[in-house]
Amino acid sequence: MPQPPQFSRIGLIGFGAFGRLIARHLSPLLPICVYDPVQTDERPRHPSLRFGSLAETAACPLVILAVPVGAMEPLCHTLAPLVRPGTWVLDVGSVKMAPADVMQRVLPPEVNLLGTHPLFGPESTRQGLAGQKIALCPLRGGRPLRLAAVLRHIFRLEVIWTTPEAHDRELATVQGLTHLIAQALNQVAPETLRMTTASFELMQQASRMVTGDAPGVLEAILRDNPFAADIRDSFLERAADLGRHPVTPRTQQSPPNAAGF
Amino acid sequence: MPQPPQFSRIGLIGFGAFGRLIARHLSPLLPICVYDPVQTDERPRHPSLRFGSLAETAACPLVILAVPVGAMEPLCHTLAPLVRPGTWVLDVGSVKMAPADVMQRVLPPEVNLLGTHPLFGPESTRQGLAGQKIALCPLRGGRPLRLAAVLRHIFRLEVIWTTPEAHDRELATVQGLTHLIAQALNQVAPETLRMTTASFELMQQASRMVTGDAPGVLEAILRDNPFAADIRDSFLERAADLGRHPVTPRTQQSPPNAAGF
Repeated sequence: MPQPPQFSRIGLIGFGAFGRLIARHLSPLLPICVYDPVQTDERPRHPSLRFGSLAETAACPLVILAVPVGAMEPLCHTLAPLVRPGTWVLDVGSVKMAPADVMQRVLPPEVNLLGTHPLFGPESTRQGLAGQKIALCPLRGGRPLRLAAVLRHIFRLEVIWTTPEAHDRELATVQGLTHLIAQALNQVAPETLRMTTASFELMQQASRMVTGDAPGVLEAILRDNPFAADIRDSFLERAADLGRHPVTPRTQQSPPNAAGF
Repeated sequence: MPQPPQFSRIGLIGFGAFGRLIARHLSPLLPICVYDPVQTDERPRHPSLRFGSLAETAACPLVILAVPVGAMEPLCHTLAPLVRPGTWVLDVGSVKMAPADVMQRVLPPEVNLLGTHPLFGPESTRQGLAGQKIALCPLRGGRPLRLAAVLRHIFRLEVIWTTPEAHDRELATVQGLTHLIAQALNQVAPETLRMTTASFELMQQASRMVTGDAPGVLEAILRDNPFAADIRDSFLERAADLGRHPVTPRTQQSPPNAAGF
């Protein structure tokens, strides 16, 4: 199985919320060249991080595409003549089937491809990355085991090898429902409630974690995951039914109660 | 304002999940007489707790009705000739308007009445009661300040004085949505998912907290709270809309991203 080189530097395309998170964690280890088409006032905070042209960034041996899923196809067309044979290109999108298809179709066959989905964001990693999960989908060039070892042993991430389809099926439930519930809850539940329960507070905490995500993330999850619509419909149907016919909970732990009155 | 006596003993009617929670926490402080119409194998675990007849239990100076909301009216009719003048009767139901109406209509005017809603259950108090909340709705006989002081200083609960209507309006959101989301999530999300996010795990944790509740609790929340239907419909409408038109999150914390590609 081919192995990636010891990457000497990293090209990072996209300096939004997630690009910055990547830069913060990788820049202490390796030089990073960042390209973002949107002007930013932010100056690099780490000496090993600098802004470069798209060509310079694409010429790195490992190129990370931290752009919205909808921006992947035009970006890959622009990148195709700039990336070198043997380069590893990886994306970090919240869905994996669509970006995998784009990268495989558009980028030259001599380029190695890896789909990744870090299952965390700026909110959930305030205490650090350790223990968080990352899904890796090898697309071309085999499993980059050295990169996986870095993710495991340096960043203490749990690495989950999977395929784009298996990923999107699970995440349709995991992220699709979380974001759907979070957004709807934020819109109907005022923040001034006093009489809150522990379970409601956990749901509010979960909601706050994801409602700060970039709008592109929400769109990718609710619209670009091909399995999201079915899961969403099942959830909404069950929820609508419950109002009419409350059911016995699946896990019935209660002892007999005083219903005999 | 009338004050309750120093209660010498407590009558507890109903020995379901919540009745047992009450007994566990109160029996080290005071003798408790328990009545439950359903035969139970469980023997009292504390020397100050014993089972008695309904008449004995109703003759205590403080009587706690830990029965399903739907059982309140027939129970109050049975209790009315048994309770003594000056007795404090309180319920612990998840809605407050309906039980308040029943107690005020059916129990004799010489009986003092307090609606309570402990905003916790067996699941959320595994680590103890401290810091949990309890809503108190004085209905007849004023505010029982001594009882409130015990709840605050002995049990370290946060006491929230409110009215049945204000309570039911808030809880329609807090408990109505939590239970609705929890039940629907449990039914559509398999428990074997590997690629979970921190926010999804919090939602699962919140769901597990409430899905062990007695079926009567779920019914009381989804059916007996007069404001639950409107809140549920708003939530479901917003959630259904989001699938079609994902919106910009209310709290937009993201910096400009690479959407310019």
